[in-house]
Amino acid sequence: MAIDSPNQPFINTKNFKKQVISYNQGTETDKNWIVTETAFHPEYQGKCEAIFCQGNGYMGIRCSTEEAYVGQVRNTFIAGSFNKFDAYEVTELPNAADHMGMKILIDGRRLDLSTGKVDNYFRRLNLRMGEVIRQFTWTNINGKQFECRFRRFVSLKRLHTFGTSVSIKCLDSPAKIEIISGIDGQQTNTGAQHFHEGNKRIYDRTHLQLLATTTESKITFVHNASHKVVIDGGQESISSRFAMDRRSLFMVYQVTPEAGQTLQLEKISNIYTTRDKEMANKSVEQIQEYSLTQLKESLAMGYDKLQEESALHWATKWQQTDIRVNSSNDLDQLAVGFALYHLTVMTPTHDSRMGIPAKGLSGEGYKGHSFWDTELFLLPFFTFSRPETARNLLEYRYHTLPGARKKAAENGYKGAMYPWESAWMDDGEVTPVWGAADIVTGKSTKIWSGFIEQHITSDVAFAVWQYSQVTGDEDFMEKYGYEILLDTGIFWASRLEWDENRQLYTINDVVGPDEYKEHVDNDAFTNYTAKWCIQNAIDYYYFLRDERPDVFVRLNTKLSLDKAVKEMEARVDQVLLHPPNEDLIIPQNDTFLQLQEIDLTKYKQQEHVGSIFLDYNLEQINQIQVCKQADVVILLYLLEHLFPKEVKAANFKYYEARTLHDSSLSLSSHAILAADLGDLELSYELFRKAAAIDLGPNMKSSDHGIHAASIGGIWQMIVCGFGGVRMVGGRLRIEPTLPTAIQQLSFPIIWQGNRLQLTIGKNGYSIENQGMEPVLFEFKEQERQVLPGATLTL
Amino acid sequence: MAIDSPNQPFINTKNFKKQVISYNQGTETDKNWIVTETAFHPEYQGKCEAIFCQGNGYMGIRCSTEEAYVGQVRNTFIAGSFNKFDAYEVTELPNAADHMGMKILIDGRRLDLSTGKVDNYFRRLNLRMGEVIRQFTWTNINGKQFECRFRRFVSLKRLHTFGTSVSIKCLDSPAKIEIISGIDGQQTNTGAQHFHEGNKRIYDRTHLQLLATTTESKITFVHNASHKVVIDGGQESISSRFAMDRRSLFMVYQVTPEAGQTLQLEKISNIYTTRDKEMANKSVEQIQEYSLTQLKESLAMGYDKLQEESALHWATKWQQTDIRVNSSNDLDQLAVGFALYHLTVMTPTHDSRMGIPAKGLSGEGYKGHSFWDTELFLLPFFTFSRPETARNLLEYRYHTLPGARKKAAENGYKGAMYPWESAWMDDGEVTPVWGAADIVTGKSTKIWSGFIEQHITSDVAFAVWQYSQVTGDEDFMEKYGYEILLDTGIFWASRLEWDENRQLYTINDVVGPDEYKEHVDNDAFTNYTAKWCIQNAIDYYYFLRDERPDVFVRLNTKLSLDKAVKEMEARVDQVLLHPPNEDLIIPQNDTFLQLQEIDLTKYKQQEHVGSIFLDYNLEQINQIQVCKQADVVILLYLLEHLFPKEVKAANFKYYEARTLHDSSLSLSSHAILAADLGDLELSYELFRKAAAIDLGPNMKSSDHGIHAASIGGIWQMIVCGFGGVRMVGGRLRIEPTLPTAIQQLSFPIIWQGNRLQLTIGKNGYSIENQGMEPVLFEFKEQERQVLPGATLTL
Repeated sequence: MAIDSPNQPFINTKNFKKQVISYNQGTETDKNWIVTETAFHPEYQGKCEAIFCQGNGYMGIRCSTEEAYVGQVRNTFIAGSFNKFDAYEVTELPNAADHMGMKILIDGRRLDLSTGKVDNYFRRLNLRMGEVIRQFTWTNINGKQFECRFRRFVSLKRLHTFGTSVSIKCLDSPAKIEIISGIDGQQTNTGAQHFHEGNKRIYDRTHLQLLATTTESKITFVHNASHKVVIDGGQESISSRFAMDRRSLFMVYQVTPEAGQTLQLEKISNIYTTRDKEMANKSVEQIQEYSLTQLKESLAMGYDKLQEESALHWATKWQQTDIRVNSSNDLDQLAVGFALYHLTVMTPTHDSRMGIPAKGLSGEGYKGHSFWDTELFLLPFFTFSRPETARNLLEYRYHTLPGARKKAAENGYKGAMYPWESAWMDDGEVTPVWGAADIVTGKSTKIWSGFIEQHITSDVAFAVWQYSQVTGDEDFMEKYGYEILLDTGIFWASRLEWDENRQLYTINDVVGPDEYKEHVDNDAFTNYTAKWCIQNAIDYYYFLRDERPDVFVRLNTKLSLDKAVKEMEARVDQVLLHPPNEDLIIPQNDTFLQLQEIDLTKYKQQEHVGSIFLDYNLEQINQIQVCKQADVVILLYLLEHLFPKEVKAANFKYYEARTLHDSSLSLSSHAILAADLGDLELSYELFRKAAAIDLGPNMKSSDHGIHAASIGGIWQMIVCGFGGVRMVGGRLRIEPTLPTAIQQLSFPIIWQGNRLQLTIGKNGYSIENQGMEPVLFEFKEQERQVLPGATLTL
Repeated sequence: MAIDSPNQPFINTKNFKKQVISYNQGTETDKNWIVTETAFHPEYQGKCEAIFCQGNGYMGIRCSTEEAYVGQVRNTFIAGSFNKFDAYEVTELPNAADHMGMKILIDGRRLDLSTGKVDNYFRRLNLRMGEVIRQFTWTNINGKQFECRFRRFVSLKRLHTFGTSVSIKCLDSPAKIEIISGIDGQQTNTGAQHFHEGNKRIYDRTHLQLLATTTESKITFVHNASHKVVIDGGQESISSRFAMDRRSLFMVYQVTPEAGQTLQLEKISNIYTTRDKEMANKSVEQIQEYSLTQLKESLAMGYDKLQEESALHWATKWQQTDIRVNSSNDLDQLAVGFALYHLTVMTPTHDSRMGIPAKGLSGEGYKGHSFWDTELFLLPFFTFSRPETARNLLEYRYHTLPGARKKAAENGYKGAMYPWESAWMDDGEVTPVWGAADIVTGKSTKIWSGFIEQHITSDVAFAVWQYSQVTGDEDFMEKYGYEILLDTGIFWASRLEWDENRQLYTINDVVGPDEYKEHVDNDAFTNYTAKWCIQNAIDYYYFLRDERPDVFVRLNTKLSLDKAVKEMEARVDQVLLHPPNEDLIIPQNDTFLQLQEIDLTKYKQQEHVGSIFLDYNLEQINQIQVCKQADVVILLYLLEHLFPKEVKAANFKYYEARTLHDSSLSLSSHAILAADLGDLELSYELFRKAAAIDLGPNMKSSDHGIHAASIGGIWQMIVCGFGGVRMVGGRLRIEPTLPTAIQQLSFPIIWQGNRLQLTIGKNGYSIENQGMEPVLFEFKEQERQVLPGATLTL
């Protein structure tokens, strides 16, 4: 058996200096560009299915193996193609028909790596190229040997196109090989079928086309696939027959290569939908025709050329944003490359009508919904290095304003109250209402986030403000940004509740970032950021009135700003903000510090997150001083100018000890704050832990998809943590500090349109201004300037 | 590896003289009661999943293994619980939540018979007890040995209850065993999800309850399951935790038995639905409560007692209908027992609002719909041996009359035009419109049966008439039967088309029983039986008018009989009936005998049915003298009194040569006719072929479910073929003739309420009248009589 012990990690993150692909992109080697699975274990398929996910922001395809295994999860997602199974469920990203699965029969038996013997196995994701290669020698139970090689890519150039290449070499004897490959629309989202079965058609006995329409949103998907099958590079495609089944259609190839011969199959596919912007003016019939033409063109190019074209597009992405980490642990470079790879794969750049799902496009977890994860954990990367994509993502929040206003109105508030979970533009709140089993009552636990986790509205406003300060994109602000900032401020002012005893405005019955505390009053993060929102809106009111009169008139008409500003001004200074207590601790909410303390050692040392639920239900956890994730800590990071260092230090110490990091969003905030506080080794330790969330040895953690926010956090830990890059009060600050393991760090950022290349060493750093304007920044509390074309060494 | 070569049958149908179950029902041995799978092959799971299907007419559960394998199909069906996925699909029997699947981890790896080593494997269906036992010794890849034993039953006594028993013995070393078992509602019908997700709840940390409601028919299913897990028969159930996932909930048991110790798990389940007659007055909440109470009661009894209780009920079924075949091939007895087993498992006896699906309750094939299969192939068994069930099934056709009338009206006809495929009572026609791929056009082939395969209306009428003659059930006839007979006659009279040239009534553009001929005119079977229907209706008109005036008045008012009879009488004698031609051949339709003849050898010798479609599309097959199945031949059987023996012989010879038997309905009709014609060895050969459809070595033929009509055909070949039992013109005729291989045959029939036990030998037969009245019958063209309590030897 070729399978490692299940207790050992089998993701080999060591370097592969050898080129593993057959064409060489320039002189760069593949050192630290490759993640390798060194043995296949059917019990842990979810890991590589998710972390080897391929995509281009338009689509994402989970890396399930061609041949089927029990426990496999096939996923093909088209960004933004949301559908609702029924009136009792929330909208989710439907799992489209699968093109990657193939039934491969060798002498009548399924190719199955859990039988026979497997040698020289690897599956490699080449981050630089965006290609996955899986290769092994299989000895079947009759002792015949086969060398099998599977390659696949999703084109970064042609957003609709993807391909597979399969080669099977009969090493020692002839074998009857049957491959059944096509388009399989029997997929569901864990049982929920989102599609009406549509027409199926085989053109010219070759080109498969399958239609499927979502049941509620009525988006028609047009799937096309075509094969070319040859022996030993022969010219003529092997003859075949075809078959249809329910929701599916297939080609059936039967070939009997001689010993030494190789069966080669290329499969080129594409998917178009009626939701695609570029298809907006086409009928379904026109899309069918158009997509078929595209397929034929791609088929004529063939796998290698298509893949090479895609790799060239990857190269430009890497040029734009690559980070080089010179560390004593090679994994650090790989982890950063892995993060940048997935930040590209998961993020729509072609359309601003959709956000980034919490699991990217790599799994069904969180139903493809967008959370605050985007604004606080992912956007900083885009804002600082791909501002055009950051703008897209914030435009998405603008497009969802009607839903946010509806949510506010339904709850008796004014302004814009963003949904905790967000899907299609007009879906409004899509947080599911029921979750996991309550161990005490045996019933499903109610999920309160959709009702009362309200800080998302601050998070969106903060991200808009951050974007505007970092980019100076006035066009965005005038069209979209000011309106969001004003209307979120209006919401918060209306949300406040007057407390007669305290003679202050309070915010009661919420869930803060720490979701282990439900129905709390005056959550510190919520209250501080709400007040920030209101003040910000007031400031922009006067700025627009005085500086942008045309914008002001338009928004004043739309939002009744003159009236709204009165309420905001009357309340903003009376928002209850918990000050640090005598021990400098900021209470997480009204009651947190009075709750029971228990020994959390067992849960802090847990192998899998959420282990506390094996002993307590949520109602009981609500009564304990335990946090799921950063709460006060993230506040100290976000509004860092409000808190002196000693307060940050005290709170970091207090809350970290009580935080289980049961959310993947938790570690990066802690790591950055630890760096700020000068504890670089702790910061580095937390960085490595965060990097291990997807890449590490826990083989189950990524089953439902990669952790998008954690991946965004990796970028932030490097750039904002060790790199010390911040925007504080509209100004750029750069205060790098490297942990022992990292010798050098280099990365680009874009400040107000000027690309800056930073190279940070142990004894200082250099900053090269590749832009057109001088850039001012702060270093060691002094203002510095770097002129266009100049390099400043500090 | 323990897997046989896939080219060899692995269903071992040899005798097992040893008792394989631990309690002995009386003195009978299990000789010829057991079907055994001797080795497990994941490529051929469908075979035993279907043929080992368990049920009780209320529910059917496919025999998929507890542990999962690729290619496994899990099915749990509740008779009559039809639902329609969307407006574009037809109603089908939804695949309910699964209780049988379990994830079994041993030392962290899935129990998986395709890995490690398997010894002493068997899976046995005990037909007499209705129990399946699967047992094997598994050596895992680390060399640890386990003796595993799985038992399961569906209670014939408690229609809602079923159970599983699992025991795993650690033969040589301790092992960490984890079993995850519960209720999994992520099942679909090949991708179509028929249920809204409902509430999930765990009561007392023990009893799992899952609700699911069909999306269109709004039937709520209440699923309950409970476990008891012990080591070595210990008293205390092993502690556990529970978990919920989407549409599913589970218990998780973790145990570490020592070497020599056995882990024992019992799982008792039940399913109730709001469609159940007995639940009609209960709310969902009341059903939840009631079913939970039932579960607790069953759990207290435990697996063994529940199974024993069910086996006692099976014993009474066997007493009622058992057939003993003394043959030189033991398989013959087994095949008959197998048929009788499935006739019980598949047939609803608790409710007359549903029919028998074409695949029983053993697979998704034909969507749970009822066809003419019931009336012509299955009903004779029930009519002659379980008349109360036959009545139920015919009442179902009465309940569907409104749909049949609607179909007639929509097509511009009068009376009742039965749907080709039938589901819930008011669904009307549910034949899907699109089928398999056309190899020429690459499009789906249109299925015409739902539009123009009209002989189903005659088939229903014939079965009603047959039932009334065999049983003398006047109550049924008055309430239901006469109305069906009259309204189907009215339909046919209105369906006739006047042919000016021929000066005859014709029936154009139909599909006859031979579905390889579409859009034909004057299909012999259709025309002959249509005329029979009209004449029969006319006869009953006068009978009722004269003999049952109250019934007459009621039906005359409802059906306007006085007017209808005029049309029927005016037309009945002018229906075009193809007479035998100069070669005595009855043309199958207007053009059949003029079609092209091709060499059919290749297709007659095919390994899998339908091979002709690899070379021709249906349009082309329409132009060839080739039949899918019996057409004229079945007419010669049904209306045997109309045709002299030499005509039967000539037509049998002509059509059999041109018939591919691509329908499982074909062989039994041919076998019976061959017996009638005195070709007993051919008849026996066809009988054995028919018996092999499900039981034989073709490992793929039963993937979509058992062949219900073929199973009914097995009974008919024995009783009506070799046993020579017929009802002709209202009279019983018994003319047995045994083929060489069969020495003796004994079986019961019920004639007009009197049970007759027949024992047929090589030189004659005896008939014992166990009833209360004298019974007249015909033998060698003479009328005989057997008095109550007497045995007549002939």
